[in-house]
Amino acid sequence: MLGLDAVMGAHMPDFDARLSATAAEIDALLSQLLDDKPLPGEIARPSRLVRAMRHAVLGGGKRLRPFLLVESAALFGANRGSALLAGSALECVHCYSLVHDDLPAMDNDDLRRGRPTVHKAFDDATAILTGDALLTLAFDVMARPEVHADARVRAALVVELARAAGLGGMAGGQMLDLAAEGRFGQFTHGEKEVATLQAMKTGALIRFACRAGAILGQADVAELAVLDRFGAAVGQAFQIADDLLDVEGDAARLGKAAGKDAAAGKATLVSVLGIAGARARLAALVTEAEAALAPFGARAEILRAAARFTAARQS
Amino acid sequence: MLGLDAVMGAHMPDFDARLSATAAEIDALLSQLLDDKPLPGEIARPSRLVRAMRHAVLGGGKRLRPFLLVESAALFGANRGSALLAGSALECVHCYSLVHDDLPAMDNDDLRRGRPTVHKAFDDATAILTGDALLTLAFDVMARPEVHADARVRAALVVELARAAGLGGMAGGQMLDLAAEGRFGQFTHGEKEVATLQAMKTGALIRFACRAGAILGQADVAELAVLDRFGAAVGQAFQIADDLLDVEGDAARLGKAAGKDAAAGKATLVSVLGIAGARARLAALVTEAEAALAPFGARAEILRAAARFTAARQS
Repeated sequence: MLGLDAVMGAHMPDFDARLSATAAEIDALLSQLLDDKPLPGEIARPSRLVRAMRHAVLGGGKRLRPFLLVESAALFGANRGSALLAGSALECVHCYSLVHDDLPAMDNDDLRRGRPTVHKAFDDATAILTGDALLTLAFDVMARPEVHADARVRAALVVELARAAGLGGMAGGQMLDLAAEGRFGQFTHGEKEVATLQAMKTGALIRFACRAGAILGQADVAELAVLDRFGAAVGQAFQIADDLLDVEGDAARLGKAAGKDAAAGKATLVSVLGIAGARARLAALVTEAEAALAPFGARAEILRAAARFTAARQS
Repeated sequence: MLGLDAVMGAHMPDFDARLSATAAEIDALLSQLLDDKPLPGEIARPSRLVRAMRHAVLGGGKRLRPFLLVESAALFGANRGSALLAGSALECVHCYSLVHDDLPAMDNDDLRRGRPTVHKAFDDATAILTGDALLTLAFDVMARPEVHADARVRAALVVELARAAGLGGMAGGQMLDLAAEGRFGQFTHGEKEVATLQAMKTGALIRFACRAGAILGQADVAELAVLDRFGAAVGQAFQIADDLLDVEGDAARLGKAAGKDAAAGKATLVSVLGIAGARARLAALVTEAEAALAPFGARAEILRAAARFTAARQS
C-alpha cells in the first residue's frame, strides 16, 4: 500500500515467516479447542454449533492479535505454550465479534475472508449462538491453569480481557459505530468522537494483546506501561490502515466488499482527515509505536516489525 | 400450581421474605455494576448500551440463581457480600441469555416479565450487543478480587461458569432447542434427547449456582458432590415446572404468552411424559433434591425450601 514499506523501512527479513508460523500454531490450538468431545463440566457439544464455531474461527486470518500477545510475552521470557493458549482465547473473542458484526441486524455482510459469513453458511440464530459460545470459550480458556501457574495472573487476564471486549471496550465501540451511521439520531463525526469509537471498537483488543503479554510475563509497572503505549499506537494504526484499505483496497484481496464504510456512512479518520491526512497520521503512529519500545532495544525488533506490518498490510 | 405446595409440605415461614431480600440486594448490585462511569481499563460507556443493559437486567425477576448461589455459599460459611457479587455475575449470564433468546431470529418474543423485550424497546442490533456486553461483564465481575481473596477460587469459578454457559452448556442447549423445532431437519424428541437439551439449556446454570456456592465456601469434594446432586435435581425440576406453566399458566401472571412451546413445536418433558407424568416426575425431583441435602441436616432447610419453591412457583 502506497509504498509505506519504503517509507518506514523494510520488514525484518524473517517477519512474514514468524507471523505465519505463529498463525499455524494458533490454528492448531483453535482446532483442538473446538473438537466435539465435551470437557469436564460440559454435557454435550452439539455438532451444528461445533461446525459453525469452526467455520467462524478456522477460515484463515493472520492471527495478528495472538502474534502481538505471544511476542510481547516473549519479551519477558514467558512460556510460549502458555502465551499461545492465551492468544487463542483472544482470537476467539475477535472471531466472535466478526460473526456478530456480520449479522443482518448489524453490518449485514455476506463475505468474510472470501468465504460466506456464518449466518450465510448456516443461519442467523446459529450465528448468534456461535458468537455467544466463542466469547464464552475465550474466558474458559483464559482462566485455565495451563495459561499460568499463578491464578492471580489468570484472573487479572480475565478482568482485562472483559474490560477490553465489553461495554467500555469493543462491544461499546460497535454500539458507537452503529450510532455513527445515524441509526439512532444525530451523531457528531468529529475527530475526537471517531478516535474514541475506534479506540473501543478495534483498539482495545489490540492494546489488550500487548498488555496481556506483559502480564503473562509478570512485567513490572513501567514495562507494562511501555507495552500499553505500544499497543495503543498499534491499535490506532491498525484501524487507520483498515479505513484506507476500505477506500483504496480491492475486493479480491480484501475478501470482502471495498467502499462499504463510506456507503454505510461509517465514521472513519479518513472521512475526518482526508486520505493524505490519514496516511500522515498512520506514519506518525508507527514511529510512535517503534519509539515506545526503545527501553527494550533490539530485543523488541519483532514487535517493531509487527507495527510496520500492521500499517502496511494489504488485506 | 396443582396443590403441589400441599403435597410437598409448606414453605419455610420466612422463605419468601428471604428470597425477596436477596433479590433486592442483587438488584442493587446490578444497578451499581451498570452505572455510566467507566472502570479502569474501560474507555467510555455508551449511554444507549448502558440503558439497554439496565432494561435487560433490572426488569424484576426472582433472582433464583443468585439466591441458590448465596444460600449454598452460606452453608459453608462464605462471606455473604462475595457470594452476592458472584450471584450478580451469574444473573448477568442469565439475563444475556434471555435477551438473545428473545430475538426475532431465535424465539421472537415481544414480552418478558410483562415488559417489552430489549429488541422491541430498542432494536435488534442493540439487543445483540446488550447480550454480548452482559455476558462479558459476568466474567469481569466473577474474576474480581472482591469475589474471593484466593485467585484460584475465582479462576475456578470462571472456568465452571463458562462451561455451564457455553458450547457444552446453555448456548449448546439453545442450539438443540432450535433443532428440536425442526429448523435444521429431523430431530428425535425422545425422553433422553429432551433431558439432555434441558440439562444444557436451563439445568447447567442452576447447577452451577449450587456448585459455585460450594466452591466459594471452599467445600471439600464430598460436599461439592452433594451440592452438585442438589443443583442437578433443582435444575430439572425448574424446567419441568416451566413446561407445565407454559401448558397450564395464564399469560397475565407469566408476563409472557402461554402455550408458546407447543405452538413452536418445542421439545418438553410434558410432550414426552404427558401432564400427569410430568407432575409425578417433578414431585420425585423435589424429593431427590431434598434428600441429597441430608448430610447438612436442618442447616440446609432454606435450600430445601428453594427446591419446593422452584417446583411450585406460578410464574
